Amino acid sequence: MRVLGVDPGLTRCGLGVIDSLPSRRATMVAVGVLRTDKNSSVDVRLGELAEQFDQWLDDYRPDVVAVERVFARHDVSTIMGTAQASGLAIGLAARRGIPVGMHTPSEMKAAITGSGRADKAQVTAMVTRILKLDAPPKPADAADALALAICHLWRGAAVGSSTPGAAKDLPDRLGLRREGSGLTRAQQQWAQALKQTRK
Amino acid sequence: MRVLGVDPGLTRCGLGVIDSLPSRRATMVAVGVLRTDKNSSVDVRLGELAEQFDQWLDDYRPDVVAVERVFARHDVSTIMGTAQASGLAIGLAARRGIPVGMHTPSEMKAAITGSGRADKAQVTAMVTRILKLDAPPKPADAADALALAICHLWRGAAVGSSTPGAAKDLPDRLGLRREGSGLTRAQQQWAQALKQTRK
Repeated sequence: MRVLGVDPGLTRCGLGVIDSLPSRRATMVAVGVLRTDKNSSVDVRLGELAEQFDQWLDDYRPDVVAVERVFARHDVSTIMGTAQASGLAIGLAARRGIPVGMHTPSEMKAAITGSGRADKAQVTAMVTRILKLDAPPKPADAADALALAICHLWRGAAVGSSTPGAAKDLPDRLGLRREGSGLTRAQQQWAQALKQTRK
Repeated sequence: MRVLGVDPGLTRCGLGVIDSLPSRRATMVAVGVLRTDKNSSVDVRLGELAEQFDQWLDDYRPDVVAVERVFARHDVSTIMGTAQASGLAIGLAARRGIPVGMHTPSEMKAAITGSGRADKAQVTAMVTRILKLDAPPKPADAADALALAICHLWRGAAVGSSTPGAAKDLPDRLGLRREGSGLTRAQQQWAQALKQTRK
């Protein structure tokens, strides 16, 4: 199973792709950060993000996308941009029939380090170890995206996924085989469900 | 000039298309509401919104999109869905090279009724009058989307547009002629600027 982790943001949007291996292991496929210019208007920045994010979906064809669940925090101006970027990424993935899982920062930290209050350094260190990287992932910002992808891989298989609905097709998602259309069976079912609700 | 007004929302997303006429008049082209099922997961709902919104862009080819500017309010759970839906709509329009203007609810109310505190009935009544409709627009929810489109038409030409950057290309946007590519000159310039920033 290939997971694309997304740490959403308007100025910096972290992305990390991993492939699952047997026995809860995983390997890194790609890591990066989408950036947009703070001096551009919000619409131009979201348009750029859309283009760049779709390019990653084209290039890496993930089976599932894991996005950090956004909560309201103190800095309202930042949170709106983050929510808008996350909505865009989620919508672009879902329209392709790719299931999207959402995890809070503390769920991610707990899954990766054992503690929901771990700091950035701990998360980066564990990501480096789990993915058997020679050095911490660069750019540093993208470590969270990789951590989200790992978190989804581990939490996704557990009871109590934070994604309502996503758990339903889990057996299908775990038995992944690419078929004629280039979509996995789970993706085809997802796409079909999407079509159904659209009627 | 054709304006698509968007009142963003995850459960109900109001859309209204108007064409400008000489002497600050305008005519309604289309009005509707995109709906998604509250029982579906957020990713499926955003995927559906993406599909439906792109269809409106295909069908009506607006020169500009006007979106309600989202602020944090008390109900955080609602505001996140609204922000995500607005981010998606803005990103999908901008990637096509369509400029997006944003207006707050009180800017819209002031532009339409003369008072930033007007209620829904007043806005609907004024929209009906301005667009010379035989009856209030249906569905009622979409009156706000039409009002946003009218607001953009009027405020857009005024000094102090709430959209940084959008005012710069206003002379071009007002001298609209469709050219070879089906894009207006302003849209072509916008698309080019988007490309530039991407490099």
